[in-house]
Amino acid sequence: MPTAPTTEIDTPAPVLDLAVVERNLARAQAYFARHGIELRPHVKTHKSAALARRQREFGAVGVTCQKLGEAEAMAAGGLDDILITFPIVGDSKLRRLTALAVRARMTVAVDSVEVAAGIADASRRAGQPIRLLVECDTGGERCGVQSPLAAAELAARIAALEGVSFGGLMTYPPKGRIEHTARYLAEAVARLRAAGLEPGVVSVGGTPDMYRAHEFGLTSLGVTQEHRPGTYIFSDRYMAAHGVGGIEDCALRIVATVVSRPTPTRVIIDAGSKVFSSDLMGFEDYGVVLGAPGARLEKLSEEHGHLALSAPSPTPGIGDRLTIIPNHACAVTNLTDRFVTLGPDGRLGSLPVDARGKVT
Amino acid sequence: MPTAPTTEIDTPAPVLDLAVVERNLARAQAYFARHGIELRPHVKTHKSAALARRQREFGAVGVTCQKLGEAEAMAAGGLDDILITFPIVGDSKLRRLTALAVRARMTVAVDSVEVAAGIADASRRAGQPIRLLVECDTGGERCGVQSPLAAAELAARIAALEGVSFGGLMTYPPKGRIEHTARYLAEAVARLRAAGLEPGVVSVGGTPDMYRAHEFGLTSLGVTQEHRPGTYIFSDRYMAAHGVGGIEDCALRIVATVVSRPTPTRVIIDAGSKVFSSDLMGFEDYGVVLGAPGARLEKLSEEHGHLALSAPSPTPGIGDRLTIIPNHACAVTNLTDRFVTLGPDGRLGSLPVDARGKVT
Repeated sequence: MPTAPTTEIDTPAPVLDLAVVERNLARAQAYFARHGIELRPHVKTHKSAALARRQREFGAVGVTCQKLGEAEAMAAGGLDDILITFPIVGDSKLRRLTALAVRARMTVAVDSVEVAAGIADASRRAGQPIRLLVECDTGGERCGVQSPLAAAELAARIAALEGVSFGGLMTYPPKGRIEHTARYLAEAVARLRAAGLEPGVVSVGGTPDMYRAHEFGLTSLGVTQEHRPGTYIFSDRYMAAHGVGGIEDCALRIVATVVSRPTPTRVIIDAGSKVFSSDLMGFEDYGVVLGAPGARLEKLSEEHGHLALSAPSPTPGIGDRLTIIPNHACAVTNLTDRFVTLGPDGRLGSLPVDARGKVT
Repeated sequence: MPTAPTTEIDTPAPVLDLAVVERNLARAQAYFARHGIELRPHVKTHKSAALARRQREFGAVGVTCQKLGEAEAMAAGGLDDILITFPIVGDSKLRRLTALAVRARMTVAVDSVEVAAGIADASRRAGQPIRLLVECDTGGERCGVQSPLAAAELAARIAALEGVSFGGLMTYPPKGRIEHTARYLAEAVARLRAAGLEPGVVSVGGTPDMYRAHEFGLTSLGVTQEHRPGTYIFSDRYMAAHGVGGIEDCALRIVATVVSRPTPTRVIIDAGSKVFSSDLMGFEDYGVVLGAPGARLEKLSEEHGHLALSAPSPTPGIGDRLTIIPNHACAVTNLTDRFVTLGPDGRLGSLPVDARGKVT
């Protein structure tokens, strides 16, 4: 894999290899096109309007945001078809949602009549129709109605509201629960149709199982299937460990400098939990150190990374640079204001994280 | 404890109770004054120049920063005596350091001749003298020389460099290792004096043991003892669990809204790991939910918080607000651009996190 001319970079820095980004986007789009599934990437991983536009150029039908603030950053960057997979609650947020609907086609996932009615009230008053999807809990144990029957009942309530339309179903299934999720969704579709409600789309999410998205079997039911992967654009150590490409497909890397060598086996770098986050994601350490097989990033202070060498060594020495694949790309993005970009020509650039910290 | 008029706040929000901040500052300053120990607070917890100025008004001799970017934000806010407890490595950072030295009295902790010589080179060329402290590893196993003998040797090397001065010792001891640390430092002071080097200051850090700082026993050796606590200004669940005040002394709280009630025991709020961070700090959950003893914040998604109720209940309901004490205040600060402030008069305001994300 080509590496950055790291001596030009002020460290610690999140460096984004744009050639790998392009390869990851192309591979995903080809898979979804082959299976007739629409791609609606989740922007949480990159939080960049420029990268969202690039995903659309590759063929994405729109984007997914988790929070209104992310959606506002994307709309400001020209994205005009936005799904928010989070319940929108409260007057100030409802005003922001209807303001967004002037600029973009807005869809929101809901799992309760209360939230649906709040959105309907606001959209009716603003004269800005909003499309609603019913969120289904297919085992993720987060938001979502608890059964296909409850999904059909909520859909019927939504269809009866003025100001909103029933657009279909949405779920974020746990990794590996494809069969159960497929059964739940098929039953929900059947119950909807029995009630005279046609789901315009059934939206499924997650990068770990994305190359098995066709196994959800929704297109064979005659519905439009959509998938919302986030991390696939950058990938990370977790995705590589779960078979979504390899370490060479990880586009986001941390470049750090060795600042201290207190002992022959201890190496301290200038990147800690305020760069990597504390997300272990099931691993026992905090990243893959490239080109240094005996080095483990075993502990993070807030601003220091602690590497343990498997054998005493004078290298890496103070001032040396290390490149590390983080466990969890989305958390790294959320801690930085800008990526350093590495172009296919080896040139360095900069890309703002437009929606960093937009949690409201 | 007074609570914020939370309905006025857009959630999720980190809310800072300024009356509690004042009380925490007053209590700490009184303790250190009583024992003749100088207080040099670490700004990593608040990253706010206004709060650093308030610490100075209470009697702090200066501030501590972990990174140059933090120091730049503090100098821009009028702080003029800054200790950076992190090795400064590389030409661009050395230029920034000497530029800072024009505006503020700069001290840097180092643990190697390489880093000391780099700083000396830069400061000599810039004509901006920098004071250096020798960092000692007293059991924290991060940076630092490995013995009192090594400390005296590095001090002698520093004293021989043009452009820098030897200013004393610095350590960040692990919690509870007071006796060992005191022995290490006393021996280092004796070795320095035997070599004709007087430590101007011996600087010790950490909030968990701060009210035992007098037990390090440095003032009785005739040296100026300094302490660098960070978290004490806000406190958090970890500090309260370790006896540094109680939960009522935690000034930083997350206000969140219930957005989903999928089951009678599951409550989903709009604050996840992008608000709280993933720091468990030894706990099994992510915060203390005030006024809801049966509710545990047992899991965080990136934007959702998952609460489990100990018994089925319709409350809290969708739209209700919850106030939660986070495990780790510093990590919360680093994820936000502004605090919502709650004044002693109950008024809400806003305070920027000037040094958020300043990791270089």
